[in-house]
Amino acid sequence: MAIVGRQFPSIDVDAMNEMGDTFKLNVFEEAKNKNKKVLLFWYPKDFTFVCPTELHAFQAALEEFEKRNTVVIGASCDTPEVHFAWLNTAKDDGGIEGVTYPILADSNRNLANMLDILDVEQEYNDDLEGYILKGDNVTFRATYLIDEEGTVFHEGVNHMPVGRNVNEFLRMIDAYTHVQKNGEVCPANWEEGKDA
Amino acid sequence: MAIVGRQFPSIDVDAMNEMGDTFKLNVFEEAKNKNKKVLLFWYPKDFTFVCPTELHAFQAALEEFEKRNTVVIGASCDTPEVHFAWLNTAKDDGGIEGVTYPILADSNRNLANMLDILDVEQEYNDDLEGYILKGDNVTFRATYLIDEEGTVFHEGVNHMPVGRNVNEFLRMIDAYTHVQKNGEVCPANWEEGKDA
Amino acid sequence: MAIVGRQFPSIDVDAMNEMGDTFKLNVFEEAKNKNKKVLLFWYPKDFTFVCPTELHAFQAALEEFEKRNTVVIGASCDTPEVHFAWLNTAKDDGGIEGVTYPILADSNRNLANMLDILDVEQEYNDDLEGYILKGDNVTFRATYLIDEEGTVFHEGVNHMPVGRNVNEFLRMIDAYTHVQKNGEVCPANWEEGKDA
Amino acid sequence: MAIVGRQFPSIDVDAMNEMGDTFKLNVFEEAKNKNKKVLLFWYPKDFTFVCPTELHAFQAALEEFEKRNTVVIGASCDTPEVHFAWLNTAKDDGGIEGVTYPILADSNRNLANMLDILDVEQEYNDDLEGYILKGDNVTFRATYLIDEEGTVFHEGVNHMPVGRNVNEFLRMIDAYTHVQKNGEVCPANWEEGKDA
Amino acid sequence: MAIVGRQFPSIDVDAMNEMGDTFKLNVFEEAKNKNKKVLLFWYPKDFTFVCPTELHAFQAALEEFEKRNTVVIGASCDTPEVHFAWLNTAKDDGGIEGVTYPILADSNRNLANMLDILDVEQEYNDDLEGYILKGDNVTFRATYLIDEEGTVFHEGVNHMPVGRNVNEFLRMIDAYTHVQKNGEVCPANWEEGKDA
Amino acid sequence: MAIVGRQFPSIDVDAMNEMGDTFKLNVFEEAKNKNKKVLLFWYPKDFTFVCPTELHAFQAALEEFEKRNTVVIGASCDTPEVHFAWLNTAKDDGGIEGVTYPILADSNRNLANMLDILDVEQEYNDDLEGYILKGDNVTFRATYLIDEEGTVFHEGVNHMPVGRNVNEFLRMIDAYTHVQKNGEVCPANWEEGKDA
Amino acid sequence: MAIVGRQFPSIDVDAMNEMGDTFKLNVFEEAKNKNKKVLLFWYPKDFTFVCPTELHAFQAALEEFEKRNTVVIGASCDTPEVHFAWLNTAKDDGGIEGVTYPILADSNRNLANMLDILDVEQEYNDDLEGYILKGDNVTFRATYLIDEEGTVFHEGVNHMPVGRNVNEFLRMIDAYTHVQKNGEVCPANWEEGKDA
Amino acid sequence: MAIVGRQFPSIDVDAMNEMGDTFKLNVFEEAKNKNKKVLLFWYPKDFTFVCPTELHAFQAALEEFEKRNTVVIGASCDTPEVHFAWLNTAKDDGGIEGVTYPILADSNRNLANMLDILDVEQEYNDDLEGYILKGDNVTFRATYLIDEEGTVFHEGVNHMPVGRNVNEFLRMIDAYTHVQKNGEVCPANWEEGKDA
Amino acid sequence: MAIVGRQFPSIDVDAMNEMGDTFKLNVFEEAKNKNKKVLLFWYPKDFTFVCPTELHAFQAALEEFEKRNTVVIGASCDTPEVHFAWLNTAKDDGGIEGVTYPILADSNRNLANMLDILDVEQEYNDDLEGYILKGDNVTFRATYLIDEEGTVFHEGVNHMPVGRNVNEFLRMIDAYTHVQKNGEVCPANWEEGKDA
Amino acid sequence: MAIVGRQFPSIDVDAMNEMGDTFKLNVFEEAKNKNKKVLLFWYPKDFTFVCPTELHAFQAALEEFEKRNTVVIGASCDTPEVHFAWLNTAKDDGGIEGVTYPILADSNRNLANMLDILDVEQEYNDDLEGYILKGDNVTFRATYLIDEEGTVFHEGVNHMPVGRNVNEFLRMIDAYTHVQKNGEVCPANWEEGKDA
Repeated sequence: MAIVGRQFPSIDVDAMNEMGDTFKLNVFEEAKNKNKKVLLFWYPKDFTFVCPTELHAFQAALEEFEKRNTVVIGASCDTPEVHFAWLNTAKDDGGIEGVTYPILADSNRNLANMLDILDVEQEYNDDLEGYILKGDNVTFRATYLIDEEGTVFHEGVNHMPVGRNVNEFLRMIDAYTHVQKNGEVCPANWEEGKDA
Repeated sequence: MAIVGRQFPSIDVDAMNEMGDTFKLNVFEEAKNKNKKVLLFWYPKDFTFVCPTELHAFQAALEEFEKRNTVVIGASCDTPEVHFAWLNTAKDDGGIEGVTYPILADSNRNLANMLDILDVEQEYNDDLEGYILKGDNVTFRATYLIDEEGTVFHEGVNHMPVGRNVNEFLRMIDAYTHVQKNGEVCPANWEEGKDA
Repeated sequence: MAIVGRQFPSIDVDAMNEMGDTFKLNVFEEAKNKNKKVLLFWYPKDFTFVCPTELHAFQAALEEFEKRNTVVIGASCDTPEVHFAWLNTAKDDGGIEGVTYPILADSNRNLANMLDILDVEQEYNDDLEGYILKGDNVTFRATYLIDEEGTVFHEGVNHMPVGRNVNEFLRMIDAYTHVQKNGEVCPANWEEGKDA
Repeated sequence: MAIVGRQFPSIDVDAMNEMGDTFKLNVFEEAKNKNKKVLLFWYPKDFTFVCPTELHAFQAALEEFEKRNTVVIGASCDTPEVHFAWLNTAKDDGGIEGVTYPILADSNRNLANMLDILDVEQEYNDDLEGYILKGDNVTFRATYLIDEEGTVFHEGVNHMPVGRNVNEFLRMIDAYTHVQKNGEVCPANWEEGKDA
Repeated sequence: MAIVGRQFPSIDVDAMNEMGDTFKLNVFEEAKNKNKKVLLFWYPKDFTFVCPTELHAFQAALEEFEKRNTVVIGASCDTPEVHFAWLNTAKDDGGIEGVTYPILADSNRNLANMLDILDVEQEYNDDLEGYILKGDNVTFRATYLIDEEGTVFHEGVNHMPVGRNVNEFLRMIDAYTHVQKNGEVCPANWEEGKDA
Repeated sequence: MAIVGRQFPSIDVDAMNEMGDTFKLNVFEEAKNKNKKVLLFWYPKDFTFVCPTELHAFQAALEEFEKRNTVVIGASCDTPEVHFAWLNTAKDDGGIEGVTYPILADSNRNLANMLDILDVEQEYNDDLEGYILKGDNVTFRATYLIDEEGTVFHEGVNHMPVGRNVNEFLRMIDAYTHVQKNGEVCPANWEEGKDA
Repeated sequence: MAIVGRQFPSIDVDAMNEMGDTFKLNVFEEAKNKNKKVLLFWYPKDFTFVCPTELHAFQAALEEFEKRNTVVIGASCDTPEVHFAWLNTAKDDGGIEGVTYPILADSNRNLANMLDILDVEQEYNDDLEGYILKGDNVTFRATYLIDEEGTVFHEGVNHMPVGRNVNEFLRMIDAYTHVQKNGEVCPANWEEGKDA
Repeated sequence: MAIVGRQFPSIDVDAMNEMGDTFKLNVFEEAKNKNKKVLLFWYPKDFTFVCPTELHAFQAALEEFEKRNTVVIGASCDTPEVHFAWLNTAKDDGGIEGVTYPILADSNRNLANMLDILDVEQEYNDDLEGYILKGDNVTFRATYLIDEEGTVFHEGVNHMPVGRNVNEFLRMIDAYTHVQKNGEVCPANWEEGKDA
Repeated sequence: MAIVGRQFPSIDVDAMNEMGDTFKLNVFEEAKNKNKKVLLFWYPKDFTFVCPTELHAFQAALEEFEKRNTVVIGASCDTPEVHFAWLNTAKDDGGIEGVTYPILADSNRNLANMLDILDVEQEYNDDLEGYILKGDNVTFRATYLIDEEGTVFHEGVNHMPVGRNVNEFLRMIDAYTHVQKNGEVCPANWEEGKDA
Repeated sequence: MAIVGRQFPSIDVDAMNEMGDTFKLNVFEEAKNKNKKVLLFWYPKDFTFVCPTELHAFQAALEEFEKRNTVVIGASCDTPEVHFAWLNTAKDDGGIEGVTYPILADSNRNLANMLDILDVEQEYNDDLEGYILKGDNVTFRATYLIDEEGTVFHEGVNHMPVGRNVNEFLRMIDAYTHVQKNGEVCPANWEEGKDA
């Protein structure tokens, strides 16, 4: 958990948008160069059941994030082709049709490895006389909040089966923005509009 | 961020309770042996301004945590003697009088080092021809949710100036308990009583 | 290209069948324990354009392989969930509906790494002061023919854009079987029924 | 099997032509400098029984390869003197009289080692307290297709007793040339003149 | 005990003064740049019982030290915030109200580590398969006398429960000053005004 | 300065007594086996000027140390023969005639090296292409107070020209004995008979 | 040239006899187990011009060697198949028809490497960034005389173009046998029947 | 036996001539600078029985060597003084009086070590806890023929008790000279004047 | 015993002369710069019984050494202060009063270590888990004769209890000087004035 | 010069006696097993000019050594054969005829290496890209006196041209024997019969 207070890694990752275009996306530069906050959330796999509810929830709140000058980016280790297939699958069929924010296709695990969020362990295999990986080598449900300088101001990881709460991320963005503007720290349970 | 899904470190740490007793507290055994969930939250320093609001907020919600079979434990790198002095300082004087849950005094940083949550960097010093530490070597605002097996099911770290939201931790405990009981995963924004 | 004449690696890999079941499949044991020949073919990615033609071609020839006591297995580095989604996509939509042989989901690249067939290179990244992978870390179009002892008797790799010829694999299986039965070597261009 | 998609090694190897001249031949430069495709095929040993049928088969198809701008080169680890003796032995006596393409005499195994196609293993010898090689240290039946840039676009290895199919190599050259010309990928079982 | 006769380490350490200001203090430069002698004394912890008597004793003798061109500096491993809280605690409540010399807050142990005065040992922990620290990682009661060149001319360490004798330090300062002025060595039990 | 709170090294060292006998003396066992406290003081060299005043001062106070169950031992790196010659030299001639406590002759520097109290530095010598020692390789004026368990409870080092104060050592022995008897810590400037 | 006076390496090497059988031959055991002397001679390559004259010369003297209880063995690095082809080539065509002693086919160079008689050097190749071998990696014209214990009593190496003198080897066998029988050393130019 | 075909080591060695002069002799330069062939022969020890017969035999053939532009040089590991004593000992007394060619005195074994012709082995000695040499550390009966470029064209080693045949060396010099002049290789048993 | 024939180490060592002055003395420069021979003799310890007889014997012969252009220097590992005390002790009291040549005070053993003449061994101490020195770490009775170039021409070491013979050193100086002057070697038992 | 006071190395060395027999001689066992003192003297080379005078001088004094229970042994690095030749050379011809004590033939330098008395240095040779030895690799004029336990009680080394004094060795044997018998140390210039 060393990344809070540090710069997010500057690396190009393949991403897919809702138009079906594969393009390179650098999360750090997205924040720094466009002077935006970024919410980056990882989910384990395309074409599973929990995950689409989170993707739709972030889509539903997209306007709220935009009001707060915040870009939303999803991420998994599937390929761009698989993201596109899922984007073209209807919500009722377990798809994510309607999602408009970009999704990282970290198929080579470059970024996930740097963040150390792969749910993976090495195991010695006697037959092969070498180490192999256990599990599918996919990511936990990790979330990063990044400010306009590219600095991480929150990171959190949930165990596989627990979905995330979009409102809590909006609250933390508000609190951090409050500190940025007013130089005041935010006490526990602080919320915009309530008394600090 | 490797600790989610793994066992919390089993190590004795000095702690102070509201009676002024210094005793050894092992967070893992607190969960495992007493069959409790644990919420462990770290704050940077005693006798500062943000921190007491968080300590009071957790105190205020203590009954809610107890309903959910959850023990609350605070933690910083100050000594037991300092915790005791702060516990004896009135709330209006910036103290935490009235807090009844135990507070870890991780003065030797054993646990904070294992969790890798110290806000610290090494810097080469030319005069001394060696490396020295920058900063006070205190912890970030890190929070851990641990289940009855001693397994971590959430970890999160906030940058220094942003206070935590107690309700979000209650929500995640509910969601995880729901999964434990019903074997159902919880979608995004799930809350107890609402439809999953 | 060291594997011809050696035993195929004995390792369990996740696989998906047309019923939507994820199960462990060990190619070596499939040959050895069931006394079958195996044709194992790798393709780069699900939900692309060349690949399905190869998958359908192997499906079309499945009866011919069965006559020759040969099991067909496909393989890519996508997850079982993605394979299942693709199996449920109609042929006209670029899917592989109708494929009945199992497909390995080598998401953790355990087997692909052992076979050294990943189309990948390391590249030093100055910003990150470390090595990252170039490309999607997916496999070449590699094919393995394995006999009833689990020994590889042919391996071949095609560059990305060139599809495979199913008949040539049938011919090589026939030739090898001829050698097994008759102890005669097969000259160039040998085909079953023609004069050796 | 790392060589597909990479440049073929640029190294001079002794070769023998049908005139009895020993000369240096660099396969990579043969392709690159003369703007030709190259089919390079290896066989285990001169003066054996399977091998000459393959050498004659490639000779018989030489015109077809030339039509496709493709040079054919044979290769084994015998010396130029032995190649010449075999070239002077009549076909009916098991010789290869009539072969006109050059044959590499990789007696020092420089190229075979780089390609990792020697059928060889190390074995510890107790009497000698050291490792010795098992087997004759000759090559498998490996085949390489190389394009005009010197890049390998197919590699395949057959176990010792199975002869190669010359037509399949012509098909792959056609398919690759089709991709070069039309930018279209070739599906499974594609053949020139049939529909892609 | 290698430091006598050597230069005191030149390093900035956080310090707290009686005004509540946190500032950087470099003991070596305090001596060298201001042409002063320095008495630096370490105590284990704020908010304990022995320690304040020593802090008050040095305060009471402050005028005597000043007459001898000597600056007094206290030091522990607590944070500046804790020092300030203790400075604001009345003497009768175990506080050090009234102390006017600065107190180092060596929270990151940079200086204490260099001086090797931390009361700490490593211990192997079987559960954690690693070394952990025993004890609170706080300092012994160490005292340093430093001359105007920044050179240490006395160092002493007392076991935890024994308080220091302020007069003895005054005597040693006098003796050393006598040597500086007169070039005469001082015999045992020498005191200013008595015969040498 | 790591030795306070630890056991004094258990090692035999040559010593000379006033009878002219060379014998082995183990300081640790002197304390532990005889159930005595020990005051061990080091001086740089025999036959110098400051040192004899210290040796006579300890002799003069010998009765006071004995009352406190404390053995006095002197020590330097000279040989037993030299100690004996000095013991036979009259006080007026700069000798130490009349001293009755034993004096360690740590000629091989075994103990002084363990205590790290030799006034010595390494220096590279260009002519000899190696490191040589600067200085006479003799000890600082170091003093150790050791309790009946062999544990060090005070250590102090004075720069060469400053003589020691015998009374301060008596005071520290009294204070430590007070803690041993009464379990009370001794505040600053504590003296037997005064109020703690 | 370390092998004189030592045991010849005990290793099985493929060999070809005049019947066309490939069999394993262990030179050391040939001497030791059959109680024979052995003359082992190496030549560079089959199907060259000098070499057959040497092979025929040893054949012509075979009876003389047999009289002296000596087995003759030839050796090169060609394969058994090539030896057989050469044995079937008439003397007038540069073949060795009529040779009846066995010929080692040290195709994997196991024995030649141990004897260090390969005419080979390593050369760095800039294009390939590695070392390659210069030359054909064949042997010098080396000869070994081995006694009935398997001990080497002569070794000699000629540069490529100089043929060997069979009579000189007969003379040395006689001289060594003379020493074995009579215990007398043989002076220079000694020959059987002349005076020693 | 790596030296055939390579340059003889260029090193100065002490030598003795029949005049009793000790001088430096460099075998390589003797060949190269004077445009001579060199025969260099080693014998184990001065003042033994076999050796003088060889030294006299070379002396007797000296004219024949000179006709062939060849210098003869003897060599052992004795000192120049010992060579001189032996040269002054009559032939009938086992001496070598009358020898006129120079003899190397390789007392420091520099050259013998490079040629690896010392009859020596290491043996572990338990008493001394180290390796010692077995045997006298003298050379085998090794012979080198070197051409006018300093290149070795024959090397041979005989076991201790077998004397050398001077005529065989003359024959090899003739054969090599024949190749040098005519570019023709010399078959087995070739001799000057006979048909090649 | 590697130092004969080599240059004596050039290093400054503290020395004491009969005036009581401590000064630096470099034995090598004493010879080289002043164009003198040097006799350097080591003895174990000041204030012992054998040693003074040797020191007086060299004093008695001082004129003879001076006649031979030879400087005498004594040496032990005691300090200059101890040397001075011994020089001031009457001969009858076991002192060396009357000695006028300088005596090295190699208290830090720099020179004795280089010459490897310390009578010392390392011994493992179980209690201390480390190596300690056995013995007093003083020197053997070693003697060095050094010529005007600073080159050692004799070195000798006697076991502790055997005194040296001054005349033998005079004889060796004469012999060496004879060689220097006449270029003649000196046979056994040679003495100046007798026939060589 | 580390060997005084230690055991002489126990190793067998070839030796020659006046009968012409080569035998193994172990100097240590010669002393220990036969309860003798040993004088071992080394000289550089046989057949030189100084050396025989020393060998004759020791022979002349042999009776004196025997009276003192002392065995005399000579030693050089020549072979036994060379020693025998020299023993058979008349004194007038520079030989050592008449010598009856044994002479070590340390041709393999085993013992000389252990004693570190070879006059040899390594020198880098640019042509050969390696280290070679300078000089003849023969010994200095070293002498060892060994007692009946095999312990060395004197060692001395003279530079090449200076002969030894036999009487001085007799004197040292007497002195050491005196100490053995009487337990009294021998002062400088001590001689048997004179007052100690």
